[in-house]
Amino acid sequence: MAAQADSPELSDSELLYLRVQSFYAWQMQLLDSGKVEDWADTFTEDGVFDAAGLPKPVSGRERIREGARRAAEDRVNSGVTHRHWLGMLTLERRADDAVFARSYALVIETLRGGIPTLHRSTVCEDVLVSNGSGWLIQKRLVSRDDLD
Amino acid sequence: MAAQADSPELSDSELLYLRVQSFYAWQMQLLDSGKVEDWADTFTEDGVFDAAGLPKPVSGRERIREGARRAAEDRVNSGVTHRHWLGMLTLERRADDAVFARSYALVIETLRGGIPTLHRSTVCEDVLVSNGSGWLIQKRLVSRDDLD
Amino acid sequence: MAAQADSPELSDSELLYLRVQSFYAWQMQLLDSGKVEDWADTFTEDGVFDAAGLPKPVSGRERIREGARRAAEDRVNSGVTHRHWLGMLTLERRADDAVFARSYALVIETLRGGIPTLHRSTVCEDVLVSNGSGWLIQKRLVSRDDLD
Repeated sequence: MAAQADSPELSDSELLYLRVQSFYAWQMQLLDSGKVEDWADTFTEDGVFDAAGLPKPVSGRERIREGARRAAEDRVNSGVTHRHWLGMLTLERRADDAVFARSYALVIETLRGGIPTLHRSTVCEDVLVSNGSGWLIQKRLVSRDDLD
Repeated sequence: MAAQADSPELSDSELLYLRVQSFYAWQMQLLDSGKVEDWADTFTEDGVFDAAGLPKPVSGRERIREGARRAAEDRVNSGVTHRHWLGMLTLERRADDAVFARSYALVIETLRGGIPTLHRSTVCEDVLVSNGSGWLIQKRLVSRDDLD
Repeated sequence: MAAQADSPELSDSELLYLRVQSFYAWQMQLLDSGKVEDWADTFTEDGVFDAAGLPKPVSGRERIREGARRAAEDRVNSGVTHRHWLGMLTLERRADDAVFARSYALVIETLRGGIPTLHRSTVCEDVLVSNGSGWLIQKRLVSRDDLD
């Protein structure tokens, strides 16, 4: 797992690392910009979103979309901006070409006229699957540091 | 925009992503280390720095330098350390070889003897242009989550 | 030091940048997951861990391991979760094939049932040496923004 020191060639894993970083940055910007329709499209049709604090996992892209839409509307109505930061990403290839991605995720919350606060510190565990030209999230599990 | 899954080759966009990440890390360290002369040199001579909260955009590298110098002196005099974190970077190539970079930027502020605080949560939108061997910022627009 | 604009080829420095990013993400996850045995193994046998606030530098992998083990036990006993975020990484090659890595490091602290707080804002300066297949930390120096 340690960074390799000698090979001058970019490995598949290293290229994947760069691509997934970029994918997440784009995905987080979609969510925080209120582009929840596009954001939901980054999940598979049968995708599952599970997060500590939810009564139960949300199953299926359309339900994930609805939930995100409601949450985005709530934020607009309350004058709240969220910024999702993902970092400290590690990746593992699975047998079936899926990728297991584990990262830290922070939610920075700012009220209009207020000061930014750390709303959540979480760990995000995704199963990513290829759709030919890119990646989709098949399963996302978000655990919260305050609830662990 | 999604991360590509199949091609084993590093694309120009992916290489650019890595380079701009590295550029920003270096640029932020310059600013926070008080190397404002070098930091200002990362703008074009006619560069523009615009930020929510400023009375008006700062135009031209020399004025950007002066502003940064004053701000750095103020921080030293007040015993304040700032750390600028950029993240969640997305890039778009423009027709004229310029690059539009959108990222989140946090400012972490720490008073000597105090605890770190989230000073600002912002979105940073840059137009980067090539100077042959590297990149320069032609225009930076920083919006603040608390003022949006 | 600026990001290069013209060459379409990934340079050794750029590849190194990607690898060290990935190395740090993995290393931070080890520490925060309580896998302190594996975490300590990312230091050389004669590795040195020095941090502002420590009475003196900790010398040798086994002492580093003991210190980490104690700190991890304390966190478990107090119901505290730490997340170490490294970012804004810059790298310099040293003459002897070692790499000097400078980055910002935040510690996010969350008590069970509490809200996340910024525990520390620091600068992390590492000397990394190759062990053939990867990197080991020979010397880590962590300075704290509140004590500088």
